[in-house]
Amino acid sequence: MSSAVESAPRSPGRPRSIRADEAIIEAVLDLLAEGSTIESLSIEAIAARAGVGKATIYRRWSGKQALLVDALRTLKGQPPTPKGASVREDLVLLMRGVGRDTDPRANKIMPCLVPEVHRSPEQYAVYQEIVQPRRELTREVLRRGVRTGELRPDIDVELVALMLTGPVLMQKILNWSPDVDDRNLPERVVDTLLAGLTPR
Amino acid sequence: MSSAVESAPRSPGRPRSIRADEAIIEAVLDLLAEGSTIESLSIEAIAARAGVGKATIYRRWSGKQALLVDALRTLKGQPPTPKGASVREDLVLLMRGVGRDTDPRANKIMPCLVPEVHRSPEQYAVYQEIVQPRRELTREVLRRGVRTGELRPDIDVELVALMLTGPVLMQKILNWSPDVDDRNLPERVVDTLLAGLTPR
Repeated sequence: MSSAVESAPRSPGRPRSIRADEAIIEAVLDLLAEGSTIESLSIEAIAARAGVGKATIYRRWSGKQALLVDALRTLKGQPPTPKGASVREDLVLLMRGVGRDTDPRANKIMPCLVPEVHRSPEQYAVYQEIVQPRRELTREVLRRGVRTGELRPDIDVELVALMLTGPVLMQKILNWSPDVDDRNLPERVVDTLLAGLTPR
Repeated sequence: MSSAVESAPRSPGRPRSIRADEAIIEAVLDLLAEGSTIESLSIEAIAARAGVGKATIYRRWSGKQALLVDALRTLKGQPPTPKGASVREDLVLLMRGVGRDTDPRANKIMPCLVPEVHRSPEQYAVYQEIVQPRRELTREVLRRGVRTGELRPDIDVELVALMLTGPVLMQKILNWSPDVDDRNLPERVVDTLLAGLTPR
């Protein structure tokens, strides 16, 4: 963004280091959105784009991996907070957040990132660090549902988390099927999985 | 594979044109497995790799898109045939085929292909031509289940096909969650969706 972050005069409410951090995060997201792969992204390129020295980056982050985790968390924003009323409502709220990112660069970055995560253990670790906090919210709602009796006691929480998120993500990010009605998809996935397919 | 397909002597049971077709298909799959994107793949490169002239390719296929559909169908092999006994068994059979390709090059090609399909309407059309016949098998089993009463009459067949395939594909191709137990995943996805999550 600014090409002279380090030499800019300090403004009262916002210390120079915070502005530099933001410029560095923005530089990572801009480079990824422009088509850089995680693999080819270099600290040199990030520093040049942010208008800071490499030392400024290394003062704040241990390396590319830690910086990527912060940048992608910034991109995805805060996950929604379950309200705790009904399991159904909370699952719908969480699934509405799947594949929905407020930053417009996410549409460029996320579909390319998802397959990239498999190319190395480091990239897979970055991906897991980003999705785990969101996945934990889903797990907590499911465990609560088992406790309250809203859900069967024998459900496999990890499997159910996959069965909720997988269809929504596949359809939203990859447009898996042109024949699926996308309206209220999170609600319909949650309700179908809660009720099951066999007659009651 | 052979670099001199067109000049090779004709063998009795296998006309030259079929051997050339196979060499062309193999060339496409080799190039994709080596990291070529669909976008960068050229008829020139395919012809050179197969040891044929461009005219040989254009005699058989209308262009890159039609050739890609044939090559990727070859890669994926024949889908399994539902046995027609129970909806549960047939869905398990179909889901066992999701993300399982007999050709070892598929592990290199498919994870990269899936996000690529979104880059242009042509690529999306290729992808849909490959997955539609398999998706239709799933639809038919679901419709049959509604007729026999094994499934509720109000299910959304397209949504349910997504809810069966999405989780299996996400986990098998992208290893979405390291915490999901991968053993018997197709069976467990089918049984969980059939039964639902709420107590009966």
